[in-house]
Amino acid sequence: MSARFFTSRWAERPDHVTELAGGLPRGFRASGVACGIKGGGERDLGLLVCDGPEAVSSVRFTRSGVLAAPVLVTRDRCDVHHLRAVVANSGNANAVTGTEGLESAVATQLAASRLTGIDARGIGLGSTGVIGVQLPVDQIVDGLGGAHGKLRDDGDGDFAEAIRTTDKTAKRASLTVALPAGEVRLSAQAKGAGMISPNHATMLCFVQTDALLDEETADLLLGVTVRRSFDRISVDGQLSTNDTVILMASGESGVRIEPESDDELRLGEALDALLRQLALMIVHDGEGARRVGRVVVQGEDGEQVERAARAVANSPLVKAALHGGDPNWGRVAQAIGGALIDSAPLLFDIAIEGVQVCSAGAALRFDSRALAQAVQRDEVEYLVALTGEGAETEVFFSDLSHEYVTINSEYTT
Amino acid sequence: MSARFFTSRWAERPDHVTELAGGLPRGFRASGVACGIKGGGERDLGLLVCDGPEAVSSVRFTRSGVLAAPVLVTRDRCDVHHLRAVVANSGNANAVTGTEGLESAVATQLAASRLTGIDARGIGLGSTGVIGVQLPVDQIVDGLGGAHGKLRDDGDGDFAEAIRTTDKTAKRASLTVALPAGEVRLSAQAKGAGMISPNHATMLCFVQTDALLDEETADLLLGVTVRRSFDRISVDGQLSTNDTVILMASGESGVRIEPESDDELRLGEALDALLRQLALMIVHDGEGARRVGRVVVQGEDGEQVERAARAVANSPLVKAALHGGDPNWGRVAQAIGGALIDSAPLLFDIAIEGVQVCSAGAALRFDSRALAQAVQRDEVEYLVALTGEGAETEVFFSDLSHEYVTINSEYTT
Repeated sequence: MSARFFTSRWAERPDHVTELAGGLPRGFRASGVACGIKGGGERDLGLLVCDGPEAVSSVRFTRSGVLAAPVLVTRDRCDVHHLRAVVANSGNANAVTGTEGLESAVATQLAASRLTGIDARGIGLGSTGVIGVQLPVDQIVDGLGGAHGKLRDDGDGDFAEAIRTTDKTAKRASLTVALPAGEVRLSAQAKGAGMISPNHATMLCFVQTDALLDEETADLLLGVTVRRSFDRISVDGQLSTNDTVILMASGESGVRIEPESDDELRLGEALDALLRQLALMIVHDGEGARRVGRVVVQGEDGEQVERAARAVANSPLVKAALHGGDPNWGRVAQAIGGALIDSAPLLFDIAIEGVQVCSAGAALRFDSRALAQAVQRDEVEYLVALTGEGAETEVFFSDLSHEYVTINSEYTT
Repeated sequence: MSARFFTSRWAERPDHVTELAGGLPRGFRASGVACGIKGGGERDLGLLVCDGPEAVSSVRFTRSGVLAAPVLVTRDRCDVHHLRAVVANSGNANAVTGTEGLESAVATQLAASRLTGIDARGIGLGSTGVIGVQLPVDQIVDGLGGAHGKLRDDGDGDFAEAIRTTDKTAKRASLTVALPAGEVRLSAQAKGAGMISPNHATMLCFVQTDALLDEETADLLLGVTVRRSFDRISVDGQLSTNDTVILMASGESGVRIEPESDDELRLGEALDALLRQLALMIVHDGEGARRVGRVVVQGEDGEQVERAARAVANSPLVKAALHGGDPNWGRVAQAIGGALIDSAPLLFDIAIEGVQVCSAGAALRFDSRALAQAVQRDEVEYLVALTGEGAETEVFFSDLSHEYVTINSEYTT
C-alpha cells in the first residue's frame, strides 16, 4: 500500500506524514472473520481492541431520523469518550429492527465484553448491510470467539475486509506522523459505496492513533476533520441509518498532544488528509463510479451556498453527464435554479476545470475542445460563483453509472 | 386514441368525460413543423392559435431560480390572462442565454404576431431542450411561416409531436365533457421525460377548451388541478428552467361556466383527470422508466409529510429497487430517516401494495411472496404512516433504469 494511499489532488499528503504498508498503532489489535451473515465464506465480522487502559475516544453518528440499533446502543449505553473495543459487521444493518434488534446489539456487546474483559460500556458497535432483517445474533456471538482468537496488531486488513459491502476497493491507511513532541501512528479502516450523503454519509470509519490525547482534543480533532471529509461527500444523496465514525487513541506512544499546541495542529493536519482521502475513496468507489466531481460554490449566504452545492452534487443529470464525460454545464445551471427556487434572476458564473462557460447567468463562448478534454479526467472540478462574497463550500460526488443501477436494482432484501 | 388515454388506476375517467381520437376544441387551430433546430427533419416548432376574440387563459411557470427566456418573456411581457397563441419549440431551451436569449424570444413573439395578427402580448412562448445555447431565431422565424400555413383544427397531433424531446410516447388527449349547461371540449398536449420534479416538473403542457370562462375561473381550475398533477410527480427530482402550463379557453362553445356552479365542478373534475393522467404518462415515460411508484405519506405535520414523500420519490435507491422489482422496503425507511434528520425515533408504518412490512419503526414478518409479486406490477403503491393525523400527500415517481443513465450520459450539449 506504500505511496499509494494519497492519490487525489484534493487530499494531499502533508510533508510530516509517511505512508506504511499496514499495521495498527501501538495498543491496538484487530481481526476480521467470516461468521456466516453474508454466506460464501466472506469476512463479515470485525473486532478491534485497544489495550491501552488510558484510551480515549470520540464518535460521530448519522443524523438520520431512523437510527439503527448499533447506533442507538453505542450512543446511549456506551461511554463514547472511553471506548476500548469495536464490534463491526457487514451484511446486516440491524436497522428498523425494533426491540429485538436492540436486544441483539446488546447481546453482541455483552459477548465481546466477556471475551475481552472490557466493560460493555467501552464496546462500540457498527453494522452495515440490509435494513429490516433481524441480526443473526448467535452467528455473531459464535464468530466473536474466533475473532478474539485472531486479534493481531496487523489485523487491520482483515478488519477492513470484514466491514465491506458493495465496496470494490479496501479503504484503509496506516501512517506515521512526525510531530514536534515525537512520532505517532495513525491508521483507519472505512467502508462506503452506496447511500453516501450529507451528514457524513453511509459509511463506517474506524480511526486509531497511539498519541496521548484528552477526550476534548479527540473530540475537537474528529469534529473538525469529519466536517471537511465525510460531511462533504455524496454518492447518491442518501443518508444512512448506520453511519458511524469512531476515533480511538491508545496513548501508548507516550507522545502527549497538548491543546492548542503545534502537535495538535500537525496531528489535525494528518487526520484531515487521512479522512479526506478516505472520503474521496468512498466517492471514487461510489457504486459503479468512473469519475469524481468536486463542486465549489461561493456566495454571500452560507445556507444558499450549501443548498446549491448539494443540489449540483446530487443531481442525477449532472452525475450522468459526469459519467459520460459530457460537458453539459447547463445541467449545473438547472440544478442551481432548482435548489434556489423563487430567487430568479440568479446571476451566477460557472467554470469547469478553469474553463469559464457562464457569466452573470448567461452562456459564454468558450473553447469547447478544452472543456471536452477536461471532463474526461478522473476528477472534474466545477466552480459556481453566486453573487456576493463571504461564504464558500465544496461537495465531492460520484457519477451515475449503469453499474449503480445494476447494483441497486438487484441488491435484494 | 379512443378508450386508451385513461389507463392508470390513479386517474380514473369521470363518467361525464368521453375520449375522442383527436382534434382541438372549437376556436383552436394548431400545427407542428420541422424548422431545423433538431436536425434530421424532426418536428421541432409548434404553433397554436385561438381564434376566439373573447379567449381567456391562465398560466403556471416553474419556480426555478434560473428562468428561461420564454418563461421570462411570457411572464413579463404578455397578458397572461388573455393569451391567444403559443409558439413552442423543442431542441433548445433558450435558458441561461442572457440578453441575447431574451431578444430571440421577443423576436419569435413578434414574428408570430405579424403572421397571426394577434398582439404580441397575447402570444405565449414555450421552449424545451438543451440549456445554454442560443436559439437559432432565424430558423424559427422562417419555420413559423410554414407553421402558420399549416394551422388546422386537427393539428394537435403535429403540435404535440413538435414539443417532444426524449419523450418516447406522445402525450395528448381530446375529450368531450358533458356539463349541465351543455357539452364542451377539452384537449391537451404535453411533453415530459427527464428533469421532472417538485413544482410542476420539467414539462410543457398546453390545454384548450371551448368552454366560456372568466379569467378567475380559469385560474382557479388550473391552479387546483396542477397542484394535484404536475406538482405531484418526480422523474429525477430535478426542477427545470422552462416548465410551463398554459390553459386557454376560446368560449366558442357558448357554454358558460359560472363560478361555484355544478358546471365548474364537473369541468374541474374533467381537467383534474386529464392533467393527472398526463402527469402519470410523463412519469411512465420518465427516461427509461419501466414502473411507476406512488408514495402516500400520512402524519400530523404537512411539511414533514411532504419532505418524507419527496425523499422516497427521489431516492435513487428506492427508484432502482422499483426498477428491479426488488421488494427492498428498507430503502423506504432509510429515505424517510434521511428526510427527517435529528427526529429519531420515528415510529412509522410502511405498507407496499397493502402488504404491511413495518410497524412503529420495526420490521414485521410478512408474506414475502405476496410482496415480491406486488412489486412486479407496472404501478406500485407505497403507504407510509408517520405518527399523528391530519396531513397526507402523494408523489408519483418513475424508477431508475439503465436507460436513464444511457440517455443522460450521452445527451450532449
